[in-house]
Amino acid sequence: MSYFGQLPQIQFEGKQSTNPLAFKFYNPDQVVLGKTMRQHLRFAVAYWHSFTGTGADPFGAGTNVRGWDRFSGMDQAKARVEACFELLQILDVDYFCFHDRDIAPEGDTLQETNSNLDAIVELIGQHMKATGKKLLWNTANMFTHPRFVHGAATTSNANVYAYAGAQVKKALEHGKLLGAENYVFWGGREGYESLLNTDLGLELDNLARFLHMAVDYAKEIGFDAQFLIEPKPKEPTKHQYDFDAATTLSFLQKYDLLPHFKLNIEANHATLAGHTFEHELRLARVNGVLGSIDANQGDTLLGWDTDEFPTDLYSTSLAMYEILKNDGGIGRGGVNFDAKVRRTSFEPVDLIYAHIAGMDAFARGMEVAAKLIEDRVFEQILDERYATFKSGIGADIVAGTANFHTLEAYALQNQSYELQSGHLERIKSVVNQYIINA
Amino acid sequence: MSYFGQLPQIQFEGKQSTNPLAFKFYNPDQVVLGKTMRQHLRFAVAYWHSFTGTGADPFGAGTNVRGWDRFSGMDQAKARVEACFELLQILDVDYFCFHDRDIAPEGDTLQETNSNLDAIVELIGQHMKATGKKLLWNTANMFTHPRFVHGAATTSNANVYAYAGAQVKKALEHGKLLGAENYVFWGGREGYESLLNTDLGLELDNLARFLHMAVDYAKEIGFDAQFLIEPKPKEPTKHQYDFDAATTLSFLQKYDLLPHFKLNIEANHATLAGHTFEHELRLARVNGVLGSIDANQGDTLLGWDTDEFPTDLYSTSLAMYEILKNDGGIGRGGVNFDAKVRRTSFEPVDLIYAHIAGMDAFARGMEVAAKLIEDRVFEQILDERYATFKSGIGADIVAGTANFHTLEAYALQNQSYELQSGHLERIKSVVNQYIINA
Amino acid sequence: MSYFGQLPQIQFEGKQSTNPLAFKFYNPDQVVLGKTMRQHLRFAVAYWHSFTGTGADPFGAGTNVRGWDRFSGMDQAKARVEACFELLQILDVDYFCFHDRDIAPEGDTLQETNSNLDAIVELIGQHMKATGKKLLWNTANMFTHPRFVHGAATTSNANVYAYAGAQVKKALEHGKLLGAENYVFWGGREGYESLLNTDLGLELDNLARFLHMAVDYAKEIGFDAQFLIEPKPKEPTKHQYDFDAATTLSFLQKYDLLPHFKLNIEANHATLAGHTFEHELRLARVNGVLGSIDANQGDTLLGWDTDEFPTDLYSTSLAMYEILKNDGGIGRGGVNFDAKVRRTSFEPVDLIYAHIAGMDAFARGMEVAAKLIEDRVFEQILDERYATFKSGIGADIVAGTANFHTLEAYALQNQSYELQSGHLERIKSVVNQYIINA
Amino acid sequence: MSYFGQLPQIQFEGKQSTNPLAFKFYNPDQVVLGKTMRQHLRFAVAYWHSFTGTGADPFGAGTNVRGWDRFSGMDQAKARVEACFELLQILDVDYFCFHDRDIAPEGDTLQETNSNLDAIVELIGQHMKATGKKLLWNTANMFTHPRFVHGAATTSNANVYAYAGAQVKKALEHGKLLGAENYVFWGGREGYESLLNTDLGLELDNLARFLHMAVDYAKEIGFDAQFLIEPKPKEPTKHQYDFDAATTLSFLQKYDLLPHFKLNIEANHATLAGHTFEHELRLARVNGVLGSIDANQGDTLLGWDTDEFPTDLYSTSLAMYEILKNDGGIGRGGVNFDAKVRRTSFEPVDLIYAHIAGMDAFARGMEVAAKLIEDRVFEQILDERYATFKSGIGADIVAGTANFHTLEAYALQNQSYELQSGHLERIKSVVNQYIINA
Repeated sequence: MSYFGQLPQIQFEGKQSTNPLAFKFYNPDQVVLGKTMRQHLRFAVAYWHSFTGTGADPFGAGTNVRGWDRFSGMDQAKARVEACFELLQILDVDYFCFHDRDIAPEGDTLQETNSNLDAIVELIGQHMKATGKKLLWNTANMFTHPRFVHGAATTSNANVYAYAGAQVKKALEHGKLLGAENYVFWGGREGYESLLNTDLGLELDNLARFLHMAVDYAKEIGFDAQFLIEPKPKEPTKHQYDFDAATTLSFLQKYDLLPHFKLNIEANHATLAGHTFEHELRLARVNGVLGSIDANQGDTLLGWDTDEFPTDLYSTSLAMYEILKNDGGIGRGGVNFDAKVRRTSFEPVDLIYAHIAGMDAFARGMEVAAKLIEDRVFEQILDERYATFKSGIGADIVAGTANFHTLEAYALQNQSYELQSGHLERIKSVVNQYIINA
Repeated sequence: MSYFGQLPQIQFEGKQSTNPLAFKFYNPDQVVLGKTMRQHLRFAVAYWHSFTGTGADPFGAGTNVRGWDRFSGMDQAKARVEACFELLQILDVDYFCFHDRDIAPEGDTLQETNSNLDAIVELIGQHMKATGKKLLWNTANMFTHPRFVHGAATTSNANVYAYAGAQVKKALEHGKLLGAENYVFWGGREGYESLLNTDLGLELDNLARFLHMAVDYAKEIGFDAQFLIEPKPKEPTKHQYDFDAATTLSFLQKYDLLPHFKLNIEANHATLAGHTFEHELRLARVNGVLGSIDANQGDTLLGWDTDEFPTDLYSTSLAMYEILKNDGGIGRGGVNFDAKVRRTSFEPVDLIYAHIAGMDAFARGMEVAAKLIEDRVFEQILDERYATFKSGIGADIVAGTANFHTLEAYALQNQSYELQSGHLERIKSVVNQYIINA
Repeated sequence: MSYFGQLPQIQFEGKQSTNPLAFKFYNPDQVVLGKTMRQHLRFAVAYWHSFTGTGADPFGAGTNVRGWDRFSGMDQAKARVEACFELLQILDVDYFCFHDRDIAPEGDTLQETNSNLDAIVELIGQHMKATGKKLLWNTANMFTHPRFVHGAATTSNANVYAYAGAQVKKALEHGKLLGAENYVFWGGREGYESLLNTDLGLELDNLARFLHMAVDYAKEIGFDAQFLIEPKPKEPTKHQYDFDAATTLSFLQKYDLLPHFKLNIEANHATLAGHTFEHELRLARVNGVLGSIDANQGDTLLGWDTDEFPTDLYSTSLAMYEILKNDGGIGRGGVNFDAKVRRTSFEPVDLIYAHIAGMDAFARGMEVAAKLIEDRVFEQILDERYATFKSGIGADIVAGTANFHTLEAYALQNQSYELQSGHLERIKSVVNQYIINA
Repeated sequence: MSYFGQLPQIQFEGKQSTNPLAFKFYNPDQVVLGKTMRQHLRFAVAYWHSFTGTGADPFGAGTNVRGWDRFSGMDQAKARVEACFELLQILDVDYFCFHDRDIAPEGDTLQETNSNLDAIVELIGQHMKATGKKLLWNTANMFTHPRFVHGAATTSNANVYAYAGAQVKKALEHGKLLGAENYVFWGGREGYESLLNTDLGLELDNLARFLHMAVDYAKEIGFDAQFLIEPKPKEPTKHQYDFDAATTLSFLQKYDLLPHFKLNIEANHATLAGHTFEHELRLARVNGVLGSIDANQGDTLLGWDTDEFPTDLYSTSLAMYEILKNDGGIGRGGVNFDAKVRRTSFEPVDLIYAHIAGMDAFARGMEVAAKLIEDRVFEQILDERYATFKSGIGADIVAGTANFHTLEAYALQNQSYELQSGHLERIKSVVNQYIINA
């Protein structure tokens, strides 16, 4: 059976095509900078938005028309697995990602919940084997259930903390079973509603203890996935502890966790924190922790996580520039569409339109970024702009041999600076050229 | 002569007084939690806003009516010193803070600039000796002059970097000469206009090198002031490297600078970064780096640094709570009014009204915070709220003896959580009680 | 039976009381500026937040522990009515407000839905008669059901528009039946997701047509409630047509609806639009359309509608100042708590704590505002500040007898302005005095 | 002499050109939808940013290297005129715009100021005659000088109000003399710092009186330019009275000024108010008041007016779509670059790079918009989406013949809605296609 109906085989048709169900830019086999688009981009479908999401928002009920909603309980869970692999097939996407609670319903007890989960994990494993599709990452949903009202690894209730530990233990085991390439921690309730009733120091210490336990257990069972933390500044809590990339780095360093973690950077989380997506990627890159990305976009005139499918070519081009410049590219990570169709885009076919829109935007972004790199556009700008650090006093500074005595002596003798304009307007014009002509 | 005219002696008159030129809450000799208000608060006047600022904004010329503006050059610089010490006397404030370029004009060469500066520093020293007033901190202005258009310690031009080094060298020497208790680094141009032409990795490395040189030089000359970094997220640059407390911590840790620095937290910078003032203070406190504060307030409906005098009693109460709970209180730091009178408050007397408003707001905030602490209001809430971490599995977690095996075993046996409400509305009502009745 | 348990009789105990279940400032019989607090404030409980809300948020399931949730369907609807009147009794609140869909479940058809609604309206009417409680306003929920996915009066689907008309027709009839003092239009889906697929002109025209039909029908049935529009800038849609007070005024004027409508101003909607609450109230006041208020508060560091119970005394004082200065005060309107307990405040008693917190904050705000008015604090400031418009050229300007010739002639002769400072810092200090001492 | 040096003749070279000093998309003679680009776009250079601006910001001194800064006083004013006409020539731009105080320095008296102004207006007139360049609009700067600290037409000081009247009288005379096509009112200080000391009602009444005087005087002297109001929400004041297009419309309607005014919509002001540029243009268009645009862009992650040169092709495409769909296009208005080079782009050539960047972005935007219109992309979407309003009950609604009785009767019979998805993701993908392929 099919949940998406009789669609023509979706394929690469080139940018002049008028078929809205064809890729215009994404061609999995096209080689860019020595690798295929498929190898560079490693697209993933997010289970929660596409198969568990309903279209509900704080002011309205679900609108999504989904074939699997005719079932309930474990039957619905199984139908979702079918639908997921159908969509992966339609889109020719290799990866998917899930939270434990996306794929199987909770039971009355943890035992029953685990049993439900085991059954669906087995089913997913069968599909993976049959289709060759792979798990980019899995994670544990420790934010939806009321027990996590005060947090999970940062809860004020030790019993809940224990539950969270049990839940992640299971998730790590499932990750290993399915060969997940990464394991993600997004702290949906790891933050606070108000400082007035929060022991911030204890909560952060407990979070660190929790992550160390996860590292230890993964090692114990031989699960060698890359651990990722996904920063977000706010929502659902007033303040999330993993506010942004820099905040997360400060936490990882303080608690000796840096060797074990990289970051999963999400575009919409970046803008909610007041940063551009490319800023967060750059910061992760220069710190050696760019692990994977959650591809979406927000609306910077709105103050909540809209999780839109990414279509802004400026953002995808600059994001792909950071990824292509990263040592090893996206590595074991990938481009996961942590994006949901608008509540007004409720037909099943919108899931396909939306993924095509996002995949094409990233494919085009990669073409633009690759051409910028091939032509050394930004590299030339930097070479010229920072040239004074290549010799003389500048080289001393970079080499670490300068001190305030040598700087002062130099400054007293050299008070002509030959400052150069940053020419930003010209550079932006050039970027437009590449977006159109790449 | 007088720059503020014939004012009645300003004194503590109590909250029922209707004299707008009297303190209602601030009484320097009043003892709170074992120390006088004077000892707790260590108020400081900011030289730049009160004596150098003109009231200009991006759309308009200066409006401030200031007696010292009848002079220019070094004469004006000297008149400002007179005015500063007159204001300190009127307000009975013990401390002041300045940037090098606030107190003396630049000359045609660095040599001449230094000479101007030396002269004014000597004059200030004489006044300090005569009056007993003290320097809370000094700093170097490396953002106003066009040479810093691309940054100072993060400039793209090595000659400018050398100049900045020479400038801070001098500032450290002056700090030592005047017995400054702290030295502040606020990176007014240490950030970027755009990632498109910025080598972020090199700039951060250079910033770290610069700070290490400063640490080394201070040690060399025996200047034992506390070094402080003042975070700010944006403005004037699109992205400032010391975005917020957490970002600064991540930087300090990465570059092995943490032992040498604490933070100078500013209220308006906190809100521009999307945080409350008390959040930044709490984060600094639990990380042992709460050094000093820049007391002001922003308008959270505006997106720029308004640097208003602080009058919000919620903010001052919660800020003082963090300070009183900090190990050693504000320590060598103080409450510096990094605040400017509104452009519409251009008369000299407004400087007095404004400082009284701010000092009273902090004094009242301290009374409120002290009463909250004496009554153990928040402490009781936390004791109850986190009680499950005091024994059993909770105690194991905190002790570091739990692991995912023990947590899972516990969770499989204990699936009742007895979650308790956070009662936030009740707590906010209590805070209102303390603000009114403290 | 009781849904709130055995509480002590809640009463006015004065601000020194330590009983968290007592009012500290609200005393319904206390006379302020010639009327009792009860008469001034006309508090109302919002049915949706307190009896229909679950505590769910976009990332989590409901947490609220509510006795009526043991029922479902019409039984639950009836239980909620019981609970509502119990809470009104406990709090000694005279008014309540509801959306049609809050009080009764939808059926399979509009006929069945109306039948459900009729039954509960009748039950509510019985309770009102028995207790003397009154309906401040009712409204129609035209945003939750999926049929309104593209709007109601601004939908792209004419059938849905007809349904909305039928729904409001019924709501007007129920308003008349229950003697509602106002009828509110909040356009939860009256806006757009994107301009790319929106006929903005048609949608606004249709909205105006809809409101004219409502005006006509109310007149036809003799329902003389005050019609109110409640502005909100965004959420759930990207752009709501009733963005703020000014936008709503421009719409009402364009479509000749101004004589029929006033505004229901909500604090949190004001701040989401970039305004203070008092700004929206002032603008409504000077335009003669201040009808009623939705009392809550947002978090200006968050970008969504948090609908917190109001506890900020600055905001309640300035809001009450506008209301007390309004011709006729709040008139037929009232202070409706469009506020929800935090998701972390899930116990039934939190509903009581929260309402006490809000009522006390408004009662204190009124005391502060009344004292400011009695002492003519702001009035004296304005008298002095605008004195030049009382005589001479200023009086000519205000009288409308000046023109550019007379102004120029005057200006060429009078180029000394005697500008006076606005003394804002002093005024803020005075406001603090009144908040503490009123 | 030349202020911009020996540049190659700048010309249209097509998008594959690598010459950064050539237009890639703007070809003044290229015909699009029946008119040349020159006729559609009517580009204008803003005198203040390009010839008076220094590059100063709130934290730093000017950086701009400008040849005319070697002069001062009237000599500098004359040099700026030369430079302006040189730049218009280089760029082949037909229009310019100025504030009175941009072009000539203030004297000690209004008489002297007017004399200075007359002299420069005469010089500008000579240049216009010699070159054929035209004045798109002029305006009066009533925000920079300290006398306007409390506003101009909304000042608290009647003498200042008179001065403002005299100033606008002169500006209208100069506009007539130079044949300005429009006259703009931007209320730089028309707003408030705080409601605590503001008589909002009086200030708005006075503003309306002022605008009526201006209308009367323009009529008296036969100056038939289109009057424009330029909305801005905040900055420099905390709240500007002309907050956004809707607010301005409500004001114009209330005071019977609507027949005399259209709007000058600025992109950066739109986003500061929480709107997209295209939203403000659409709202102006459907209200028949789209007069002219200030072409620039802001940074939505920053909270102040950055006035960047426009390079975002999404924004320029959607802006041009609104303009092309407007009855009469941009009419007597134009595309004025109210944009400044970044403080880091301080070389004279950056003025040329920046204008080319902006002109090309608008030219490309127009190509994209024209192709979208030719292909009826959005029109087809709307035709289908709102089809139910073309017949039956929908047609009755639009015709104004429906009422709540007929809607209810219809709704009770028709409860199947055949709701259609808005397909927004597909539409965004199509827009990307047009941006790349137009």
